[in-house]
This record gives sequence, C-alpha cells and structure tokens, in this order.
Amino acid sequence: MGRVISDITISADGYSAGLNQSEERPFGDDGGDGWADKLHAWYAETPEENREEVDQTIAAKAFIMGRNMFGPVRGEWDRQWNGWWGDNPPYHAPVFVLTHHAREPQPMDGGTTYYFVTDGIESALAQARAAAGDGDIAIQGGATTVNQYLAAGLIDELRLHIAQLTLGAGTRLFEGVPPLKLEQVKSRATTVATHVTYRVLR
Amino acid sequence: MGRVISDITISADGYSAGLNQSEERPFGDDGGDGWADKLHAWYAETPEENREEVDQTIAAKAFIMGRNMFGPVRGEWDRQWNGWWGDNPPYHAPVFVLTHHAREPQPMDGGTTYYFVTDGIESALAQARAAAGDGDIAIQGGATTVNQYLAAGLIDELRLHIAQLTLGAGTRLFEGVPPLKLEQVKSRATTVATHVTYRVLR
Ligand SMILES: NC(=O)c1ccc[n+]([C@@H]2O[C@H](COP(=O)([O-])OP(=O)(O)OC[C@H]3O[C@@H](n4cnc5c(N)ncnc54)[C@H](OP(=O)(O)O)[C@@H]3O)[C@@H](O)[C@H]2O)c1
Ligand SMILES: NC(=O)c1ccc[n+]([C@@H]2O[C@H](COP(=O)([O-])OP(=O)(O)OC[C@H]3O[C@@H](n4cnc5c(N)ncnc54)[C@H](OP(=O)(O)O)[C@@H]3O)[C@@H](O)[C@H]2O)c1
Repeated sequence: MGRVISDITISADGYSAGLNQSEERPFGDDGGDGWADKLHAWYAETPEENREEVDQTIAAKAFIMGRNMFGPVRGEWDRQWNGWWGDNPPYHAPVFVLTHHAREPQPMDGGTTYYFVTDGIESALAQARAAAGDGDIAIQGGATTVNQYLAAGLIDELRLHIAQLTLGAGTRLFEGVPPLKLEQVKSRATTVATHVTYRVLR
Repeated sequence: MGRVISDITISADGYSAGLNQSEERPFGDDGGDGWADKLHAWYAETPEENREEVDQTIAAKAFIMGRNMFGPVRGEWDRQWNGWWGDNPPYHAPVFVLTHHAREPQPMDGGTTYYFVTDGIESALAQARAAAGDGDIAIQGGATTVNQYLAAGLIDELRLHIAQLTLGAGTRLFEGVPPLKLEQVKSRATTVATHVTYRVLR
C-alpha cells in the first residue's frame, strides 16, 4: 500500500498562508515579501542537486487538497474555476478537492481530473486510495486540510520546507493537532529553505 | 559590539515548553516523552563533530533569561532558589534574570552571578551589554523572554534546534511577534534535531 505524504511550505513560525487570501495573493498577507512566489520561482529553477527537495510528491498517484488551495472561490461556485495550474496541471492523476459545495468532476488535460468531495477526509482518502492503487497519495494542503489528516493519524510522512521569514498570523500547520511523535528521516538546507522530512510515529 | 544571540530548542510546532511547568517537569507536559531530558542528555554526550551545534552560546559574555527558565518559583521568592545548574553554573558570567519580584544579586562559583532585573528587557540588555563589553550576549529563554526581545527588534541571531515531536500547547516561540524577515545562515541535521541559524534582518 502506498504512503500518505504531505509536503508543505511553512514560515519559520509555522504558517502555510498569511491572512486575507485572495486571487491576487493566494498565500495571503506577507508584508510585501512575496515569499511563496519567490520559493516557487526557485523551485522551478532549482539546480539538479536540489530537485529531490522540490519534486518529492510529484510521483504520487492521487492528490488531496482543500478548496482554498484549489482556488479563491468561497461559498457557492459562482464561476468556473479550474485550479491555479492551467489546462494541463502538474498532477496527471486524480485530485480530490475537499469542499462543502458539491460540483461535477472536472477533467483536465494530461490525466488530471478534479473530483469534489463533500463527505469528509476519510472519504477523500478512500477515493484517493482506490485511484492510487499501490502508489503514494499526496495531501497537498493547505494547512486546514493537512491538520485534519494529522489529527486523524492518517499521514505517514510529513515534508516541511521552512522558509526564511515569519508571518505572525494566518493558517498554521499543527493548529489543533494533538501531540505527535516524529522521526526525522532527513533534513537538509538549500539556499532558500530548510527541508525536513518526518515520519509520523504511531 | 557583540551580537545578541538567542539559542532555543523548540518542538516542530514551535513550542519551547509544554503546559504545566513544574519543578519535577521544568519543560512542562510532553506526553511522557521527556524530550527536553533526552535532548540535554544527547547534547551532553554529543560527538565532537556536532559540538558546535550545542555549544553555540556558551561563549557569550553575559546572559539573559526569564524567571521561569531560572526556576519553578512563582510569585514571591518564598525559598532560596539558585537556578537549575548547581553551585558552579555553566555561565561563568553575569546572568540577568527578568522578574517582577526584586531580589539581591546571587553570586555563584565559577564567575556566575545572578542579577534580578525588575525594570524590563531594555534595562536587562543594557546591563548585559555593560557586562559583556565586546562579547556576545545570549538571550537564553524561555520563549516568553525571547519573544519580547524579538518583538523589540533586539535579537541579531536566532538559533533553533527543532526537536522530533509536536507538543500541541505550551509557550510558543514567535507568539505575538510581528512578522520577521530572516536569513538562513546555516542549517544542519543531527540525529536528534534540525539546527537552523537565522540572522534577523532589519
Ligand atoms: N505553503 C504551502 O505549501 C501551501 C500549500 C497549499 C496551500 N497553501 C496556501 O494555503 C491556503 C489554503 O489553505 P487553507 O488552510 O486556508 O485551506 P485549505 O485546506 O486549502 O481549504 C480549506 C477549505 O476546504 C474545504 N474543506 C476542508 N476540509 C473539509 C472537510 N473535511 N469537509 C468539507 N470541506 C472541507 C472548506 O471549503 P468550503 O467550505 O469553502 O468548501 C475549507 O474552508 C492558500 O492560501 C494556499 O495558497 C500553501
Ligand atoms: N526549549 C528551550 O530551549 C528552553 C529554553 C529556556 C527555557 N525553556 C523552558 O521554558 C520555560 C520557561 O519559559 P517561559 O516562556 O514560560 O518563561 P520565561 O521567559 O523563562 O520567564 C517568564 C517570566 O519571567 C518574568 N519576566 C519575563 N519578562 C519580564 C519583564 N519584561 N519584566 C519583568 N518580568 C519578566 C516573569 O516572571 P515573574 O512575573 O514571576 O517575575 C515571567 O512570568 C521553562 O519550562 C523552561 O524549562 C526551554
């Protein structure tokens, strides 16, 4: 059976997004730093020796994300938002989007289909498992979603990219999650972040 | 002029101590993990190649700490508590203890004297500066103390040791501290923790 992996970028004080997420600033307030954009640009251009730090989840066979990560639409689906990642998203696999607002599946180019799951995290994971077969499943974010899976004891491996700033407020990883014992499997610095992989012990 | 350095061990979710600190468990609730004791034991026995990760502040010429780090006494000084570190503490320099409860200076063996500072963080830092000359000043903790110095923009270098657990509750580093820009000067894994040194940018 594949592992359940979560790979998330956080500020040094543990936030994965600032306050006031919007279409213009999906990562919310950041004091004008543009930290997420800078990291993404670096991830895109990163030299070969660092690729493993940034391509870790790309091999997953199914993905789960929260609706806020999927896009800026809140409340009813009042427009046809199909994710931040264009017509050919980098997933090339089913992506299960947690939401309270039902919607038909949305097929995209290159093998990605967005499925909208309204009956909770266990259901999304069961569907992802069925789709992934023996492959890994990636819990993509945001923190609200990752925290639910952590609290339910459903994540095997947690990969943190710790960026060089604090945000002071926003959506915080581990918020409301009961204490966890972790095993540091790997930890490595690049020029933009500290990358730590933890196995979540049971 | 020396640098102002803070060196602190945190859980992966950013706590430097759990809830319910006591004389028996100075680091508070930790789900029976004894994380702080384990780390301290490892720090004490650590092989030569890791010494720099654990001896970083020991060269400071003056130290500042909060009264909760100094000991378990709360409220009035109802007994002669002289710190956790025995008759010959590892500081060998003046240690300024922030407190609301005045007390005479307490000289110890080996050059350590505990001074009790009741007029705030700037005063403690000024006294530490005067004592340290050109040497570094270490803000020893706990998080309540470090956060005040961070919020006031008075820390030059922050050294984090990120332990392999989450605590879920307690005293959290960065709590209430406005957003900071950091420069990751160094980041390195040992078998027990990820050690990251940040320069705090202004
Ligand atoms: N730093 C990173 O690596 C990283 C990674 C991913 C995302 N992000 C950022 O994080 C932010 C999004 O994260 P977030 O924590 O705010 O939210 P999120 O986890 O992406 O999405 C939360 C939303 O998903 C839906 N949802 C979550 N759990 C559900 C459940 N059990 N049942 C039904 N619906 C559920 C709800 O939306 P509805 O009620 O509206 O349906 C909820 O408001 C964005 O700013 C994104 O850019 C950062
Ligand atoms: N993980 C680590 O590396 C690390 C490092 C150090 C400590 N610790 C742990 O952290 C805990 C202590 O940390 P903490 O954050 O709870 O407290 P702390 O910062 O050590 O001490 C806070 C106390 O110091 C006094 N104080 C602080 N600022 C003051 C100010 N501006 N003016 C006057 N008094 C002031 C107050 O005591 P009064 O009002 O009672 O006088 C306050 O309650 C302990 O459990 C310790 O074992 C962990």
